[in-house]
Amino acid sequence: MPTSTAPFPFTARLARVRARLAEAGADTFVVTELNNIRYLTGFTGSAGILVVTAADSRLLIDGRYDEVVREGQRSGAIAPMDVIRVRKYDPTLIETIAGGGGRRLAFEGDHTTVAQYGRWVHGLPGVTFTPVYDWVESGRIIKDDGELALLRRGGRLLSGVAEALGQWVAIGRSEREVAGDIDAAMRRAGFEKPAFDTIVATGSNSAYPHARPTDKTIRNGDLVLLDFGGVLEGYCVDLTRMAGAGRVGADGQSLYRAVRQAQDAAIAAVQPGSLTTGVDQAARQVLEQQQLGSAFVHGTGHGLGLDVHEAPRVGPGDPSEAVRLEPGMVVTIEPGAYVVGLGGVRLEDDVLVTVEGREVLTTAPKDLLIV
Amino acid sequence: MPTSTAPFPFTARLARVRARLAEAGADTFVVTELNNIRYLTGFTGSAGILVVTAADSRLLIDGRYDEVVREGQRSGAIAPMDVIRVRKYDPTLIETIAGGGGRRLAFEGDHTTVAQYGRWVHGLPGVTFTPVYDWVESGRIIKDDGELALLRRGGRLLSGVAEALGQWVAIGRSEREVAGDIDAAMRRAGFEKPAFDTIVATGSNSAYPHARPTDKTIRNGDLVLLDFGGVLEGYCVDLTRMAGAGRVGADGQSLYRAVRQAQDAAIAAVQPGSLTTGVDQAARQVLEQQQLGSAFVHGTGHGLGLDVHEAPRVGPGDPSEAVRLEPGMVVTIEPGAYVVGLGGVRLEDDVLVTVEGREVLTTAPKDLLIV
Repeated sequence: MPTSTAPFPFTARLARVRARLAEAGADTFVVTELNNIRYLTGFTGSAGILVVTAADSRLLIDGRYDEVVREGQRSGAIAPMDVIRVRKYDPTLIETIAGGGGRRLAFEGDHTTVAQYGRWVHGLPGVTFTPVYDWVESGRIIKDDGELALLRRGGRLLSGVAEALGQWVAIGRSEREVAGDIDAAMRRAGFEKPAFDTIVATGSNSAYPHARPTDKTIRNGDLVLLDFGGVLEGYCVDLTRMAGAGRVGADGQSLYRAVRQAQDAAIAAVQPGSLTTGVDQAARQVLEQQQLGSAFVHGTGHGLGLDVHEAPRVGPGDPSEAVRLEPGMVVTIEPGAYVVGLGGVRLEDDVLVTVEGREVLTTAPKDLLIV
Repeated sequence: MPTSTAPFPFTARLARVRARLAEAGADTFVVTELNNIRYLTGFTGSAGILVVTAADSRLLIDGRYDEVVREGQRSGAIAPMDVIRVRKYDPTLIETIAGGGGRRLAFEGDHTTVAQYGRWVHGLPGVTFTPVYDWVESGRIIKDDGELALLRRGGRLLSGVAEALGQWVAIGRSEREVAGDIDAAMRRAGFEKPAFDTIVATGSNSAYPHARPTDKTIRNGDLVLLDFGGVLEGYCVDLTRMAGAGRVGADGQSLYRAVRQAQDAAIAAVQPGSLTTGVDQAARQVLEQQQLGSAFVHGTGHGLGLDVHEAPRVGPGDPSEAVRLEPGMVVTIEPGAYVVGLGGVRLEDDVLVTVEGREVLTTAPKDLLIV
C-alpha cells in the first residue's frame, strides 16, 4: 500500500510549529504530548519529550527506544533530528535547555503537569515560561493526504467488520463473547489494536452509553448496541451499529428510528462552514421533537486522528466557542438516546468534511440488524 | 468468586486521604487522576473529578455516567457520596468549591495540568492552592486483601495463558498472528482486556525492548520475546517469556541464561526491607559480570495494580530516592539484555512482597520454550 509507507510531511509540520514560535517571540517549544510528538516526528514510543527551536529539533528518549529510533531514522519513518538519551526526563530536559541557550520557553499548557512545570522553573532560573495551546493540535485537526488515506482505509476495513456482525450477534451469546469476536475480526482485518474498549451492550445494559461487556446474554426482544473502533498505523476509526434480537418491541423500534433520523440530519449538516454546535443541534432538534431530548446525554461526535477523541468536539454549547468545519476535518456523528428500562440506541459513522460537503468513511449498512 | 464481589474498603481509603487533608491544614482535596478516583470510590468512567472534604465527598461526572453511578451506588460497587452532573468539568468544579466554602485547596500536582490549574485559580479568587503528591498513591502501593485476591487470580490466569504458548508460537507464523492468539486467550481466560499492547518480537526484532508485532514470521534460530498482560476487574498483571525457534545458537542460549540468572537474583532480593535500588542492582550485577551491563537498557521492574506501571519503580538510582519494600507491595521483576544483530531476552514475573519474603504470582515455567 503506497499510501501507508509514504513519508509523512514532518518538515512541513515542524515548520508550522516554528512559525508559531516566531509569532510568540519564544525561542524554544517543549512538546510533551506523545501523539503531538508522533505527529511532528514519527516517534511512537510511550515516553519522550521533543524540544523544537528555530534551528533544530531534539528528541529526548530513554534507552528502550535507542535502537528503534536509529532504525526509524534510517528508514525515513522518523524525522531526522538529534536524539538525546535520558535516564530521567526532567533533569535531562533542563540540561538540554540550559545547554542550548533557550531563554524564552513555550510549553504545552494542556499537557504539562503542575509538578513538571515546577521542576522546570526550579531548574532553569532566568528562563521565562509561557503555556501555549493547540500549536500542534491546530495542525492535526486538518488531515493531510497521507492521513486521509489511512482514515479512508480504516473506514473501509471497519465497515467490513460491521458487515459481518450478523455472524456473531445471536440470542444466547454473551456480550463478552461478541466483543471478543469483534476484536479478533478487527485484528484480522489489519488493525493493530482496538481504538478503545469495545462496547457490546444488550437489553437494559444498552441504556448505559459507556457500558462494558459483561456475561449477560442476548435475549429475545433485546436491543444490542455495538460500538467499536480500530487503530491503523496510529489512526483511529470508530463505528456504532444496532442489532435487534428476535422481536423488538414497538418502543425500541421507534427509538431506533428517532436516532436514525437524528443521525441523518447531523450528517447532512456536515459541510465546510458549518459550526460544530450547528451539527449537534441538527441531531438534538430531531430527538427533542420526539420528546427524547433528555435521553440524548452526550455530544454528537468528536474528531478522529491519532487520538480517538480529538478536536473538533461536535457538541452543544455557545456558538462562539464552536469550531467552523473545514475540508480535511474528520468527525464522528453519533447521536444516541438512552431510556432506562427500555434500552439505548446509538448510530455512529465517521465523516470527512470535503470541499463539496462530506464523505462518509464508514459505509456499512445501518438498518437495525435483526438476529 | 466471593473475593471479587466483596466491597472494596472505600471508607478506609477515604479516611486515609482525609487524614492527609487534616495534616496539611487544607479543607478540600481535588482528585483528578482517574485510577485514584476509582480506588477511592469504585467509579470506573473515563472522565470525572472527585472532591473530598473532611465532611463529605462529591463526584463530578457527565451525563454518560449518571445511570451507571446510580446503579453502582445501589449495588455497593460505588461508594455512597453526592453525585454532581456536569456539562463542562472545570466550571462545575469551580461552582462546587465556591458553593462548598472551601478556602484551602489541595490538588494532585502530578495529575493536574498547568491549563486546568490556571482556570481554577482564575475562577476561585481568595482560595489558596497547594499541589500535593502521592496522597492516594501512597495507599495504593500496599495492596489490601481484595486487591491481592484479584492479583493472585490474575497471576494464575496469566500463567495459564503462558503455559499454552507452545500452541501458537511456531516457525512460519507471524508476530501479529501470535499476538492475536495471546490476546484471544487472555480474553477467554477471563481478562477484560490486555493490560498493554502485547509484544511478540522475533529474531532481530527482539532486540527492541518495546517492539510492536509486525508481519515478520518466526524463522529457525530466532529468539522470540513474548510480553503480555491482562486486566482483571481493573487490576493488571504482566509476564514475559522467551521461546526459541528450532536451533538457537550458542550466543542466544547464553544470553538467555544470563538474563535468567539475573532474574533469579532479583527475585531472591525481594523481601521486606529491601530497597528497590538493591533489587535492581541484584539483577544488574549479574549482567555486568557477563559484560551485558550496557545491554540492560531499562529498569528491573515496576509496581502493579490499577495501573500497569505504578509505584514502586524498581530501577537503578540514588538509594536515598528508593522505596523500601513492604509486605503487600506487588512488583514485576523483568531484567533483559538486548544485542542488536543477535536479539534480546527478557523474563518477567509478578512478585508480591510478603512478611516472610516473597510470593511469585506468575508460576508458568520459564525455560526457553523450544518450538
